[in-house]
Amino acid sequence: MRVEGVWRRAIEPSADGRAVVVLDQAALPHSIAWLTLATLDDAARAIRDMWIRGAPMIGAMAAYGIAFAVRADARPAALAEARAQLAATRPTAVNLRWALDVMCAALEPLAPGDRGDAALSLAAKICDDEVARCEAIGRHGLSLIEAAAARAGSRPVRVLTHCNAGWLAAVDWGTATAPIYRAHEAGVPIEVWVDETRPRNQGLLTAWELSQHGVPHTLIADNAGGHLMQHGQVDLCIVGTDRTTREGDVCNKIGTYLKALAAHDNGVPFYAAVPSTSIDWSIADGAEVPIEERSGDEVRRVTGRPPGGSRPVAIELVPAQTAVANPAFDVTPRRLMTGLITERGVCAATAGGLAALFPGHAP
Amino acid sequence: MRVEGVWRRAIEPSADGRAVVVLDQAALPHSIAWLTLATLDDAARAIRDMWIRGAPMIGAMAAYGIAFAVRADARPAALAEARAQLAATRPTAVNLRWALDVMCAALEPLAPGDRGDAALSLAAKICDDEVARCEAIGRHGLSLIEAAAARAGSRPVRVLTHCNAGWLAAVDWGTATAPIYRAHEAGVPIEVWVDETRPRNQGLLTAWELSQHGVPHTLIADNAGGHLMQHGQVDLCIVGTDRTTREGDVCNKIGTYLKALAAHDNGVPFYAAVPSTSIDWSIADGAEVPIEERSGDEVRRVTGRPPGGSRPVAIELVPAQTAVANPAFDVTPRRLMTGLITERGVCAATAGGLAALFPGHAP
Repeated sequence: MRVEGVWRRAIEPSADGRAVVVLDQAALPHSIAWLTLATLDDAARAIRDMWIRGAPMIGAMAAYGIAFAVRADARPAALAEARAQLAATRPTAVNLRWALDVMCAALEPLAPGDRGDAALSLAAKICDDEVARCEAIGRHGLSLIEAAAARAGSRPVRVLTHCNAGWLAAVDWGTATAPIYRAHEAGVPIEVWVDETRPRNQGLLTAWELSQHGVPHTLIADNAGGHLMQHGQVDLCIVGTDRTTREGDVCNKIGTYLKALAAHDNGVPFYAAVPSTSIDWSIADGAEVPIEERSGDEVRRVTGRPPGGSRPVAIELVPAQTAVANPAFDVTPRRLMTGLITERGVCAATAGGLAALFPGHAP
Repeated sequence: MRVEGVWRRAIEPSADGRAVVVLDQAALPHSIAWLTLATLDDAARAIRDMWIRGAPMIGAMAAYGIAFAVRADARPAALAEARAQLAATRPTAVNLRWALDVMCAALEPLAPGDRGDAALSLAAKICDDEVARCEAIGRHGLSLIEAAAARAGSRPVRVLTHCNAGWLAAVDWGTATAPIYRAHEAGVPIEVWVDETRPRNQGLLTAWELSQHGVPHTLIADNAGGHLMQHGQVDLCIVGTDRTTREGDVCNKIGTYLKALAAHDNGVPFYAAVPSTSIDWSIADGAEVPIEERSGDEVRRVTGRPPGGSRPVAIELVPAQTAVANPAFDVTPRRLMTGLITERGVCAATAGGLAALFPGHAP
């Protein structure tokens, strides 16, 4: 999408093709910095230290990490070491393991001399495939926004989203944001309510993305969405997902469930944008999804720009001894979902709905 | 309640009786500072700039504001001006108008020379009455916590609260916290989930209060409560109220509605602590309550302690040009309330429930 007026991806090959350039998410929204990453260690650090984040982006970065590793040393032992190093960066990320599996399965049969170029090509293909999935989600989701626009009449359609399931997290287009960008490109008047998304405030990334692309949006505290829905200020909710069960329960950023309850209570359609790579066909009930408990420091501290300062700083909201619980995700039961927007179309959040679009995945 | 080991009120007469001393809520939880306020302008600024906050505290402060005004100038025009100045500070708080009505109704019949002392006495009585109401709410609410303790068996009762309806907000005891403090004093094992309560983070005040008094508690992001209720981690919710309609709709800090939805969805009892002063008998439907829209800077900026620093600083989370909406309250429909804890007992959140406890208020 557009950054400073130029259409970019969140990860791109460098001009000489020997590195990738990524947007440093740790610096956003305060400053725009492109990082050039050319080695396995660079890639591992970018994932571990969250210079980049978002499941599809992590997979893409890991794929390039393998490519950099095999170009430096194409022997089998080096490939295995690279895989282990990358796998350890974010142990819970599903796309990370998936991308490593895909890369290694493709490279292991090749002669060492052929691995370098093949790895770069495959990493690029993984990125292109992510973008294609997001583009398709955008196309299918556009029809939902157009329907909401028809109901909205002369005023803009108002879409609420939670967290950042945007192009920063997904190479380009994003998942939840793809229908929004697509509608904006199609000239559908649209305004976005952006949940701040405590504790990590990923909504600030979404607001930044939308502002760069010129999509009207308003930032709100996570507490505000229910009130807005009660007062007819939200036409549609679209969120991302970290994992969706085969029966349509949606595990996503903590707080998604509360918004789904409010949407249900007020007759507001509530959709998740679900690339098929995020469907866990091995799980039926969302209650089986393990929920990551993250450091309480994410709640205790927050980062921003001090008055007159240019570099972001972290401040402490409460003393370090304050007990904090910080579950990172929650599960929205399928009964609260209006539907799922996949790259193959929109379906009901049911086993049957998903199976019809993705046959052959019965457990 | 206890501060640094000493039992204090959040607003107390100064030693010479000519001013009041209040705990500066803007400095908490980072430092404990008592402010001496002696003029109408002090009182108005303390309310408007939220050095003090919470419906009962606002009423108490407004009463002292009138007292300071009439001591400086006891003429009728000055009283009317003082009333108008104080009434303009916070639009939603019904206690503000109530306290101004009580003060003016009592003072207007008096000779100007008698007004100063009478006003100070009446303001002190308003504070004492608030404390008595909170004590009674604590007594009635204790029975609900004891019932939850019986269901909880050997583990502590887990109560979730939102915002700060604590003693800082209510002279002493608090409203929502009164049953919690009462249970703690009675030896009932209790743990409190404290919502951070963005954007103003009043949950940090609640966490501070509870820590000063020694009540076990855990701070959570506002997004987390639904997930905790889904997993059986919440036995009871108790919130405060800024205004309750005669039919039992509860207007309270933004985000309360989302927690009530989650409680309802998971069979968790959800109560509001409702001193009768916060009941608006003139309104039936919560949709009629005007909702204060506050500055977007409350969302854009946050205050905390920098690394190694002692004085809190404000940092900017997003650029000033980011559009922000900041509704301060929402309305929880009575159908989601298990009941209301008033100073006269616990009742259903219905017109009949309230009318039975407070006869003579039929519109």
